[in-house]
Amino acid sequence: MTFAADNSVPSIPDFLRSAQSTVRADLLAVIDQQDWPETLTQAVRHAALQGGKRIRPALVYAAYAACDTTAGAEANAAARRAAVAVELIHCYSLVHDDLPCMDDDDLRRGQPTVHVVYGEANALLAGDVLQSLAFEVLSGTWFEAEAQAVDAQIALAQMHSLSGAASQMVKGQLLDLAAESKRVAEAELETIHVHKTGALIRSAVRMGAAAAGVTAARLADLDRYAYALGLAFQVQDDVLDVTATTEALGKPAGSDEKLQKSTYPSLLGLAAAQQRAVDLHHAALQAVEGFDQRALQLRTLADFLLTRTA
Amino acid sequence: MTFAADNSVPSIPDFLRSAQSTVRADLLAVIDQQDWPETLTQAVRHAALQGGKRIRPALVYAAYAACDTTAGAEANAAARRAAVAVELIHCYSLVHDDLPCMDDDDLRRGQPTVHVVYGEANALLAGDVLQSLAFEVLSGTWFEAEAQAVDAQIALAQMHSLSGAASQMVKGQLLDLAAESKRVAEAELETIHVHKTGALIRSAVRMGAAAAGVTAARLADLDRYAYALGLAFQVQDDVLDVTATTEALGKPAGSDEKLQKSTYPSLLGLAAAQQRAVDLHHAALQAVEGFDQRALQLRTLADFLLTRTA
Repeated sequence: MTFAADNSVPSIPDFLRSAQSTVRADLLAVIDQQDWPETLTQAVRHAALQGGKRIRPALVYAAYAACDTTAGAEANAAARRAAVAVELIHCYSLVHDDLPCMDDDDLRRGQPTVHVVYGEANALLAGDVLQSLAFEVLSGTWFEAEAQAVDAQIALAQMHSLSGAASQMVKGQLLDLAAESKRVAEAELETIHVHKTGALIRSAVRMGAAAAGVTAARLADLDRYAYALGLAFQVQDDVLDVTATTEALGKPAGSDEKLQKSTYPSLLGLAAAQQRAVDLHHAALQAVEGFDQRALQLRTLADFLLTRTA
Repeated sequence: MTFAADNSVPSIPDFLRSAQSTVRADLLAVIDQQDWPETLTQAVRHAALQGGKRIRPALVYAAYAACDTTAGAEANAAARRAAVAVELIHCYSLVHDDLPCMDDDDLRRGQPTVHVVYGEANALLAGDVLQSLAFEVLSGTWFEAEAQAVDAQIALAQMHSLSGAASQMVKGQLLDLAAESKRVAEAELETIHVHKTGALIRSAVRMGAAAAGVTAARLADLDRYAYALGLAFQVQDDVLDVTATTEALGKPAGSDEKLQKSTYPSLLGLAAAQQRAVDLHHAALQAVEGFDQRALQLRTLADFLLTRTA
């Protein structure tokens, strides 16, 4: 696995494209079932349906497929719920991160941010309801195809994982804020990312596995995969902030340097940071070797995340 | 049941005092188990441990006692978790409501608000983590006395109820914001309160009942109780905003009028609003007549809420 030297955009794997379309339809179905004031609906749609790579939902489906030998193209309802829920949590975190009292960002995914369009109060409340909706989704039935009731054991495992991850994400935010304009050691940087972005990625994998009723031994392998993948994702994000353009990213490039943030390139140098991403990618693949062909989607996602240019 | 004409403070019933002490100890236990940056811990403690009437936790315990003939003074773990969780959601809503982009309040429970002490970013994140922590609490074991694992069916019912209530609360906020500086009809005002405060009160009762494994028929009675109680609580809040002092309330009195908010006194007149609270109180008591002595705590809370002066 090497980096695309010409900065060409790698094609989105078919599996990811299909995941994006599934989760978008399911997000829409959930939002359409709400009886909200129009402003809230609009703000939530803006937050949840304006693109995004949908990596976390794809990880839910991929982990589910890796654990369930009967899993076909269409993931079962518990996996679909988890995919929607993890994306809702991700979207809530972006809306709140962008607020003036946080990063004060005007641009996200190439679009004006929620508070720029709908005002701060509506953005705050949209983020709040995206979070509670995530837990509503996990604990209820939402999709036409669902005939059976929610499996309580699966839902409990998913709730436990996702709520813990959401709390860790906030802890990561706090650590990140405290580290701004300050040089931190690599271990500290890893702690920040393990909480800020890693926890939700690990939860995505764990919730997909829970939907398939996974055994403890397999869960340990999947956890190692998710840990390495989450960190690789973040290292690569830092690298792209240096190497990519604002247009490609859909958000301002070079913002880490402007904010004097400690990043892997600033701590290790660009080449060593890129090597670190490659090593983590390798560790992720190794962790799921025992799954053979069933881990194909997990491998596909790891490859895509490393070679992406935005 | 009549109003205390001399504005004397009614004594807090023993049951409520005991509930306050139980939920405070459990909140402390949960917060102490967190591995958070110090600022977050401080902000969350400020939000969750600075007093408050703890009506919602008390309703959890009272509903549990009404349904479980074996329930002694100490509620079981599922009820204790629900009591902590519902209070965490309540506290998160207060922290976010007080933010400059919302009500911009400097004073809450006689203390400076969280953002005044810790800044807006920390207040935003403290509110966010209070919400996710609520769902973590429902889905895990937290208290020393808990030997057994979480009952998945009970936890699922509680999760479903609390997450739905949290979403409805946000909807109520939005409706309330939209109604500011505008005269609304009584039906519309009721819709706002049923969402903004009523949903969480109904969820408290429902989660307590779920902890006791309640039957559907009893749940309907409890729902009627909680609906009437929640509305009575709000009517009384509006009345107190007119009749009580800032000192007694611990927040600015007369703020509804200043914000030109539609309230029950402004729509119905003060006397008719007070009568409405009495009628709703009566409806709440009627709803739980079938529970006989086991509804003692539910009745005690209804009486206290109607006669309170702050």
